[in-house]
Amino acid sequence: MKTLQTYIDKLNALNFKEMYNNDFFLTWEKTDDELEAVWTVADALRYMRENNISTKVFESGLGISLFRDNSTRTRFSFASACNLLGLEVQDLDEGKSQVAHGETVRETANMISFMADVIGIRDDMYIGKGNAYMHEVADSVEQGNKDGILEQRPTLVNLQCDIDHPTQCMADMLHIIHEFGGVENLKGKKLAMTWAYSPSYGKPLSVPQGVIGLMTRMGMEVVLAHPEGYEVMPEVEAVANANAEKSGGSFRRTNDMAEAFKDADIVYPKSWAPFAAMETRTTLYGEGDTEGINKLEQELLAQNAEHKDWCCTEDLMKTTKDGKALYLHCLPADINDVSCKDGEVEASVFDRYRDPLYKEASYKPYVIAAMIMLSKFDDPAAILKALEERGVPRIFK
Amino acid sequence: MKTLQTYIDKLNALNFKEMYNNDFFLTWEKTDDELEAVWTVADALRYMRENNISTKVFESGLGISLFRDNSTRTRFSFASACNLLGLEVQDLDEGKSQVAHGETVRETANMISFMADVIGIRDDMYIGKGNAYMHEVADSVEQGNKDGILEQRPTLVNLQCDIDHPTQCMADMLHIIHEFGGVENLKGKKLAMTWAYSPSYGKPLSVPQGVIGLMTRMGMEVVLAHPEGYEVMPEVEAVANANAEKSGGSFRRTNDMAEAFKDADIVYPKSWAPFAAMETRTTLYGEGDTEGINKLEQELLAQNAEHKDWCCTEDLMKTTKDGKALYLHCLPADINDVSCKDGEVEASVFDRYRDPLYKEASYKPYVIAAMIMLSKFDDPAAILKALEERGVPRIFK
Amino acid sequence: MKTLQTYIDKLNALNFKEMYNNDFFLTWEKTDDELEAVWTVADALRYMRENNISTKVFESGLGISLFRDNSTRTRFSFASACNLLGLEVQDLDEGKSQVAHGETVRETANMISFMADVIGIRDDMYIGKGNAYMHEVADSVEQGNKDGILEQRPTLVNLQCDIDHPTQCMADMLHIIHEFGGVENLKGKKLAMTWAYSPSYGKPLSVPQGVIGLMTRMGMEVVLAHPEGYEVMPEVEAVANANAEKSGGSFRRTNDMAEAFKDADIVYPKSWAPFAAMETRTTLYGEGDTEGINKLEQELLAQNAEHKDWCCTEDLMKTTKDGKALYLHCLPADINDVSCKDGEVEASVFDRYRDPLYKEASYKPYVIAAMIMLSKFDDPAAILKALEERGVPRIFK
Repeated sequence: MKTLQTYIDKLNALNFKEMYNNDFFLTWEKTDDELEAVWTVADALRYMRENNISTKVFESGLGISLFRDNSTRTRFSFASACNLLGLEVQDLDEGKSQVAHGETVRETANMISFMADVIGIRDDMYIGKGNAYMHEVADSVEQGNKDGILEQRPTLVNLQCDIDHPTQCMADMLHIIHEFGGVENLKGKKLAMTWAYSPSYGKPLSVPQGVIGLMTRMGMEVVLAHPEGYEVMPEVEAVANANAEKSGGSFRRTNDMAEAFKDADIVYPKSWAPFAAMETRTTLYGEGDTEGINKLEQELLAQNAEHKDWCCTEDLMKTTKDGKALYLHCLPADINDVSCKDGEVEASVFDRYRDPLYKEASYKPYVIAAMIMLSKFDDPAAILKALEERGVPRIFK
Repeated sequence: MKTLQTYIDKLNALNFKEMYNNDFFLTWEKTDDELEAVWTVADALRYMRENNISTKVFESGLGISLFRDNSTRTRFSFASACNLLGLEVQDLDEGKSQVAHGETVRETANMISFMADVIGIRDDMYIGKGNAYMHEVADSVEQGNKDGILEQRPTLVNLQCDIDHPTQCMADMLHIIHEFGGVENLKGKKLAMTWAYSPSYGKPLSVPQGVIGLMTRMGMEVVLAHPEGYEVMPEVEAVANANAEKSGGSFRRTNDMAEAFKDADIVYPKSWAPFAAMETRTTLYGEGDTEGINKLEQELLAQNAEHKDWCCTEDLMKTTKDGKALYLHCLPADINDVSCKDGEVEASVFDRYRDPLYKEASYKPYVIAAMIMLSKFDDPAAILKALEERGVPRIFK
Repeated sequence: MKTLQTYIDKLNALNFKEMYNNDFFLTWEKTDDELEAVWTVADALRYMRENNISTKVFESGLGISLFRDNSTRTRFSFASACNLLGLEVQDLDEGKSQVAHGETVRETANMISFMADVIGIRDDMYIGKGNAYMHEVADSVEQGNKDGILEQRPTLVNLQCDIDHPTQCMADMLHIIHEFGGVENLKGKKLAMTWAYSPSYGKPLSVPQGVIGLMTRMGMEVVLAHPEGYEVMPEVEAVANANAEKSGGSFRRTNDMAEAFKDADIVYPKSWAPFAAMETRTTLYGEGDTEGINKLEQELLAQNAEHKDWCCTEDLMKTTKDGKALYLHCLPADINDVSCKDGEVEASVFDRYRDPLYKEASYKPYVIAAMIMLSKFDDPAAILKALEERGVPRIFK
């Protein structure tokens, strides 16, 4: 039987001291030990919640969410993570604030952070912008803390940017680890990150990029499959290549979905927009060229429609390892004849994997909470132990 | 002098074990003991708050509110109830989420519930839809909990559906109980649930239906009065009839407001839309028939306007028991020459009952909190006792 | 080294017993001791937070925010203050509620206050309305508490009205006190509250009015400078005159910005709308005269544009005391060539004072929290002591 001590022992064997008072932007900026620490704390927090041990480490404090897009999942994941640790969420959105009226990032970042222990940002729309914006915010509050304006230094958690979607991919990976019984069992496993058709356009690249940037570190055989013209950022492919080399796995690209699926242990079929087109769109937005944006949208939709055969069908699933590859998705999926006529996946495939998909999603709040804890405490293992000893139940008894 | 032990003793004499890990949809799905348990816990929680004893039973946890309509009262009542128990409210509304973009109920219900201990839903617009939707959500999270996706099973509280408005009617009833000095004093009392004119149209039927479905259980003489054409759902009238028979009271319908008011101990004059028209409207909405909806609205407004004499006047109030019937309303009321020219009630009547009306409303947060507690704890009496012994003050001293 | 006892001793020497169970509308309705108590508790709370001592005095309870305008700063300041004390914020805005649909103030005030310990209101748009509305709300909940509807009496905190902006000015003053090393060092210091050009119109008068109504109490030489036609409310000028006389300082008005800046120790250059024009606008809004409002706006913008020379330049700053006057602003400022072409201040001036400006802002949450504490506890000094003895850390250790 697992006990909390198992997780504490595991943590004590890892080196993650650089995470203290630090932020979480991209998985490939973190060491293997640091990622392992996130999964371990996430599992420990889940264990504690399931055993009715309060993990409230903040008596007061705010978690600020700053979302450039609407999002049920990420919003509730962030709110859940904050709540689990004792932080109250305050949303900063343009409708509620004066951000839209010309305030500088530095000023706003400080003004919202007087009681903020964490800032979660989702900004994935514009290539070259989201991650940069997050760094601007993080630098601002770091400086604000140094200057004595902010009593504490809020941690920044990247809830999805133009480059990576670390909370999603770390949750995906934790799901994989649990399904395969441990990181040590992933060596040599084949993972197919493949494009799939969707009737909408402009879906972010952060998921495929995050997946190839993370999954290549475990010694897996990672294949990125997409139609010609749907390339991801070359910098991230370079990361994937370097990772694979170091981890003893492999990374390659193909334009053949069937080849990617063949004998795969894990498949992740999902739509995304071409990187180059998103760059163009970012420029058009910058220029306020509405006509250009509309024209681009029509072109992209037409381009997508040429690839309706890129669908995760039952036939394709049969070609995977024992016909039983683990099917992943960040949700919501475009399901054939359910959410749209033609989409990313056949309804029967999706339905068969519904439970594992929801479990996959359920790791995200714990992953976010773990990222916060690892930034806020220099000895989180000791904190977990002390929380167990404190023994305050989450639900009174 | 009342002590907490009084409520605990009362609870211990009741059988409400089926409420544990269960939801609250309609009052007539609950036994008399179960309803009594709600009122008893509500009174106990109010007693504790008034005596500065913290009733925080959750160290962390979320209360999700899902409102299809705007609502000051219900929103703040739910937030107050959650806060009283230690849950943080997170609103799921379409503006903030992707619900509108084709997510299935099952998926959304799970995605928002990873840390959710309660989900409160208000969905009263469309006949045949609101209650059904609530069941879909409740079934989804029940299944999610069984499948190991959700660590806990969130309780669903019906904050108003197309059939019943249980938190309102339970608060109304608790108010009546306090005004009349106990449930045992209600036998034979006459309650007039009557339609009243309003210049707006399409007001929900859940209040009159909830009232006749609940108040007929106490041995009262319940009269439902409305102009011809303003019938409520026949299923609920059947419930009222069965209740009256069982409780030794009576239920009857009249088209004569004066007759209903005559010698009444309690009057509840309030506008609502005709059931049949709401069914039609639901169909028209389903078909996206805007022209049909507008036409129906005009017809209904014209129909309403024929019954401006259905108003709670001073003259009518004089005909009630000793001229002093308890006047009830779920608020906000349409008050003559205040919120509109002609409305549901004369200003002087409303003014005279302002205090009791606000008290009536003040029970709702406690009723909601009681529903949550009865679902979350298998021995709430023991919990109340333990909270008193814990003796944490709500406000530090 | 400062200890908490320093603040407690200071508090014990002050008379502020009238603040208990009271509200905070205008600074000039408070005694000097009462203002001193606010600053002292604010400093104490900040000391405790910086020393990781939890100041959570509420186990549960709501802080209601009611904002007629959007506002990042005030919103987050209020949320931070509430969170610091253990209150959960619930926003009442028209989009989320039925306030817009004819509810009376009295009814709404009670309906949202069943669990409310504090109500923060910002209502600064219409001359003669905002402060009056706040009183209406405060009177309603005071009555509701007396009538047994509300278990507690929520405190009202004025987060900006048409007359004063007490949380801003009290924070400004606390900043000045810290910069000058104590209230006792302010006697004879020259403070210039001056109008400055902005390309927007209709900025509230509450800041200049709040400043002259407060800063004249410390024996300072307060100068109000503005172009002809930008007069503030005469009632507030009368307050400033009386204050100055009593405090041994002075208050005078000039139409010459340079004269105001000359040898000033503190400068507060900021745009505002002419009082008389705001009165006219209030009337036009009341009459729904859109054409009149638009015409007035054009006139005011044209009038503003005649005074582009009213800018806080480097040249002007050089004329202040040692060229180093403390520059104040409530933020956001209109910065030349940053937020607009011509504005209130040159970019290099603003940049040089960025740190102090952010510190100035950082006092606001503590000032608001102090106002709440002083209203909620009859012996806040004892509470601070007890909190220190309780020794619960804000962040678990």
